[in-house]
Amino acid sequence: MRQGAESECLGSLVTLLTDFGLRDYYVAAVKGVLLGLAPGCVPLDISHQVDPGDVEGAAFLLAAAAPRFPSGTVHLAIVDPGVGSERRILVAERDTSSYVAPDNGLLTPLLDRARVRAVEREDLYLEGPGSTFHGRDRFAPVAAYLLRGEPAAGLGPAIQDPVRLPAQPPRRAERTLRGRILHVDRFGNLITDIPSRWFDGGTFTAELSGLQVTRWATHYQGLPAGEPAMLPGSLGTLEFSLRGESLARQSGAQRGDSVRVKLR
Amino acid sequence: MRQGAESECLGSLVTLLTDFGLRDYYVAAVKGVLLGLAPGCVPLDISHQVDPGDVEGAAFLLAAAAPRFPSGTVHLAIVDPGVGSERRILVAERDTSSYVAPDNGLLTPLLDRARVRAVEREDLYLEGPGSTFHGRDRFAPVAAYLLRGEPAAGLGPAIQDPVRLPAQPPRRAERTLRGRILHVDRFGNLITDIPSRWFDGGTFTAELSGLQVTRWATHYQGLPAGEPAMLPGSLGTLEFSLRGESLARQSGAQRGDSVRVKLR
Amino acid sequence: MRQGAESECLGSLVTLLTDFGLRDYYVAAVKGVLLGLAPGCVPLDISHQVDPGDVEGAAFLLAAAAPRFPSGTVHLAIVDPGVGSERRILVAERDTSSYVAPDNGLLTPLLDRARVRAVEREDLYLEGPGSTFHGRDRFAPVAAYLLRGEPAAGLGPAIQDPVRLPAQPPRRAERTLRGRILHVDRFGNLITDIPSRWFDGGTFTAELSGLQVTRWATHYQGLPAGEPAMLPGSLGTLEFSLRGESLARQSGAQRGDSVRVKLR
Repeated sequence: MRQGAESECLGSLVTLLTDFGLRDYYVAAVKGVLLGLAPGCVPLDISHQVDPGDVEGAAFLLAAAAPRFPSGTVHLAIVDPGVGSERRILVAERDTSSYVAPDNGLLTPLLDRARVRAVEREDLYLEGPGSTFHGRDRFAPVAAYLLRGEPAAGLGPAIQDPVRLPAQPPRRAERTLRGRILHVDRFGNLITDIPSRWFDGGTFTAELSGLQVTRWATHYQGLPAGEPAMLPGSLGTLEFSLRGESLARQSGAQRGDSVRVKLR
Repeated sequence: MRQGAESECLGSLVTLLTDFGLRDYYVAAVKGVLLGLAPGCVPLDISHQVDPGDVEGAAFLLAAAAPRFPSGTVHLAIVDPGVGSERRILVAERDTSSYVAPDNGLLTPLLDRARVRAVEREDLYLEGPGSTFHGRDRFAPVAAYLLRGEPAAGLGPAIQDPVRLPAQPPRRAERTLRGRILHVDRFGNLITDIPSRWFDGGTFTAELSGLQVTRWATHYQGLPAGEPAMLPGSLGTLEFSLRGESLARQSGAQRGDSVRVKLR
Repeated sequence: MRQGAESECLGSLVTLLTDFGLRDYYVAAVKGVLLGLAPGCVPLDISHQVDPGDVEGAAFLLAAAAPRFPSGTVHLAIVDPGVGSERRILVAERDTSSYVAPDNGLLTPLLDRARVRAVEREDLYLEGPGSTFHGRDRFAPVAAYLLRGEPAAGLGPAIQDPVRLPAQPPRRAERTLRGRILHVDRFGNLITDIPSRWFDGGTFTAELSGLQVTRWATHYQGLPAGEPAMLPGSLGTLEFSLRGESLARQSGAQRGDSVRVKLR
């Protein structure tokens, strides 16, 4: 029934990352449009539980998950407090994957090495019954265009000025590493932006969120009981964890808290 | 390994809408049966977070999401407080899609223009280990039958008396529009049943849930700060929203609350 | 683009059961690796809402859901408080399906009739940026190996000593059935381990969690109002339920509570 198009899109992967939650019809509407315009594509959820409007949290998740997907994947990320306004829709090509997202900083961690375009193809947009759901009416058709194998170059001109979240790169001085908590995960682990390779394996004192941490572990099972420790986290950055408990709940630590690791 | 059947079902879309939640094995069991009986079908979630037994909420979500899916999609909706009783299982054909649901009002918004049948095919039902899980043992096999491309006419006789939720259509008099809140979404937006096209764009006062709203916006970014406004919502009906906050939480508004818009 | 491999894996089903939750990037990272190493495979969620580290709860869900999936499905279950330690990774073959899980008891209900192997294929493991995410770096590549149609025998030697959760089988004496609550579902139903076929349909008194239950129903709609009843649950075991309410909330019943049914 969907012969022609199907031969083009069958098996094309498209990830979705939104703040739409799982109780509404929003995610399904986006997937329905994708499957209608790019038959045979395979939608895969990264998360829909981003806090409403939390662009920074979404940027972290996208940059953490997307590189794990195979070549050719289209990543559609819609956390868009400015929906309906004149903020641009961006398409970024990086390595062999494509990213579709609002121009609000969501792509920040992926912008190095990326070619970024501003979409100027109103002809692709759907005439929705209202003007407030760009995920369904604009972002999905743009992603479907890429899923059909059409070239990103046809979507709009390359740009040099995508919106970026404020840069707060981690720093290393003499014997001190400085950074911040990038993410608090479900288990209450505190994921920082300090590269694990900066840590030399010696004695240290880490200070964050009112905690003093001096213990090191290479994996969760190796955590000491009842005492927080520092580990080499799953994204290549230092992480803080408490065995069998939520360190975030226990300490009150939050995303954005600063982290200082003094090496001895 | 599943050659024969696969050639028939490969890529057939089936959406799922239930109140099963995401912590239990129920959704997976339904998908497993679908994939076993209609190999190669593609299950897609609308939501499984419908409040337990909330047929009215499910009816809203189904009617909002389903029309976005391509031709040929089978929609399986199981919010079924009467499971195990003698309530009928319905199959509705509407446009080029099919719907499988209990006969309890869940299909109400889709019944216009639909051909409805009561399933009378006990031979399709699975002998489950218990008699309480019709989603797995009855609804899934019926949906799989359709996914295999079999005709709905073979499932049972057409009926004229499906259960309908009480009709409360919106009304317009002289200079007043009346309706109610159909849905409160994750962002706390209040979605009404009053068609946006009834609003002439002039001065107005909307009254709902103790609120008086006089501001208009065409999209969320255009919302005034700190003051609720009315917008043309994503389903073609009027919606009320508060910039960056949950209007539902702030106002205590709930589904079912009446809405009156006085045009000046 | 992924021609060669795709012909092998297209449509191979892989279920996922984890305690990763739906807010993090963890589930997506696992799926990305699966799709990269076994192109065309179809990931399906059982649940990711297992309580952190709750191996017993995961074992219940896996055993409840997995048998519903078609022949050839690979089931990947990662609830792994011992991640990073030297606990083994197991592959179990049972009927025509395969299971990949940590050796911590998660497979307990499935071990009868299963052939179990300890994975000894470090060459398959990915070099992740950290050493703490075995789901992505070890479990996913092992599952992908099976999804590509490679033989389980190539993963490692058969073993006889997988870790088992403590055995607490239900018992029947003269006129008394004894067991416990295995699971509390979303609706607050209490699912026990006592086979429904042990119940003779006569008069009875069931005692559990401070409740005395004497009513019987064959389905939820048949439940008496305001009074808990016993039913033949969807897994072939006795279940306790309260019409339109959560019996768990009302009674405070919890998983593990003992259940005694006295037959008269």
